Amino acid sequence: MPLFDVIAFDADDTLWHNESVYSATKKKLIDLLSSYESEHDVEQELDKREGKNLSVYGYGVKSFTLSMIETAIDYTNGKIRVDEIQQIIGFGKEMLFTEVQLFENVKETVSKLAESYTLMIITKGDLLDQEKKLSRSGIDKHFECVEIISEKDEEAYRKILLKYHIQPERFIMVGNSLRSDILPVVKIGGIAVYIPAKINWVLDAVKDEQWPLDGHYEIEHIGQLPALIENLNG
Amino acid sequence: MPLFDVIAFDADDTLWHNESVYSATKKKLIDLLSSYESEHDVEQELDKREGKNLSVYGYGVKSFTLSMIETAIDYTNGKIRVDEIQQIIGFGKEMLFTEVQLFENVKETVSKLAESYTLMIITKGDLLDQEKKLSRSGIDKHFECVEIISEKDEEAYRKILLKYHIQPERFIMVGNSLRSDILPVVKIGGIAVYIPAKINWVLDAVKDEQWPLDGHYEIEHIGQLPALIENLNG
Repeated sequence: MPLFDVIAFDADDTLWHNESVYSATKKKLIDLLSSYESEHDVEQELDKREGKNLSVYGYGVKSFTLSMIETAIDYTNGKIRVDEIQQIIGFGKEMLFTEVQLFENVKETVSKLAESYTLMIITKGDLLDQEKKLSRSGIDKHFECVEIISEKDEEAYRKILLKYHIQPERFIMVGNSLRSDILPVVKIGGIAVYIPAKINWVLDAVKDEQWPLDGHYEIEHIGQLPALIENLNG
Repeated sequence: MPLFDVIAFDADDTLWHNESVYSATKKKLIDLLSSYESEHDVEQELDKREGKNLSVYGYGVKSFTLSMIETAIDYTNGKIRVDEIQQIIGFGKEMLFTEVQLFENVKETVSKLAESYTLMIITKGDLLDQEKKLSRSGIDKHFECVEIISEKDEEAYRKILLKYHIQPERFIMVGNSLRSDILPVVKIGGIAVYIPAKINWVLDAVKDEQWPLDGHYEIEHIGQLPALIENLNG
């Protein structure tokens, strides 16, 4: 009998490319603002603004769009033109329409695991945007439950496990964020599988001392997940 | 034995004032744009823009803020000043910090019903904003489950009932929106209680022919809910 009931996946940068979409949009903003003189760095200013807005707006593309507009106004000392602000709004909308690009091995792995386990998605971000991405991904049929939440901390995971009557030790969380997918899950007694992403979001970093020493596994890509779970099952 | 297991409530304009916050913000936008000449009507243009953006952005204050900015740019033919756009972003942020004002009788009614029933919130809107409002409302402890979803249609209600193993005929939904709280619930065999709000959102109206003739109850204010449920229980 398998040791686990539920395998939950983070979505952005675990199942599909996301940070690359943000990076490409940041580049567009940098290009747009390149004709303005400033002693500041666009990317740094944007990161700062995003960090500041996080507790007000939450995660996702709409927050990012509003942060881009504010950054552009500040960066240009209010000299940015209105048609350029309109372009920034357009950058945001393009993000929402970007094709969902699954990582390699995702399709096969998810479909294989769905044969033996209940699969779940636990993700942050804009409600509608995440739902649409999942539906466009073509793998939505494999996930029995989808939880889009505002923060992935211990309390949030505890609530989800309670809601679905899942024992922490029978719960696996797979994700690319130490702060959101690994640390809190290890702390509540679950099993966490870390798949580092190539590009990481600067605001999602964890401090060294918070690094979980035990209770989590690391693999290079999602294709290695079925073998890892088989091993854990003994 | 009571006939019902779960009483679910819509949040905005059912438990607390919301449309009035939007109305007040619309007035600020109208004031801001009053110095510009235009043959259009700000409010009409904003409603149109919101309708257009709904499928892209979803519900909530961030969508509304972005729609206000787009409306202002269009309405002024791009003549709006950047500092005025900044003011509009400020209007949006103020909305997110507005004090939650419960309707009369909400506190007592919710606390009374929580003694005998499992209470739930089912609402649309921005994830983080709705969570914060609930937490600031002071009545959050009475709700066992909170579902913030992107659309309140039959499919969405079916999914929730399935998730919590609730029989539709043992489920009551209380809300102010015929389109989101009453119609879909009646259609899936649940019991819907309609409490008309004084101000309604123009985009949330239903056409006459969609009006559910049977299977829903109407009360004037939430204070009448316990008596209605007692009557239904016979």
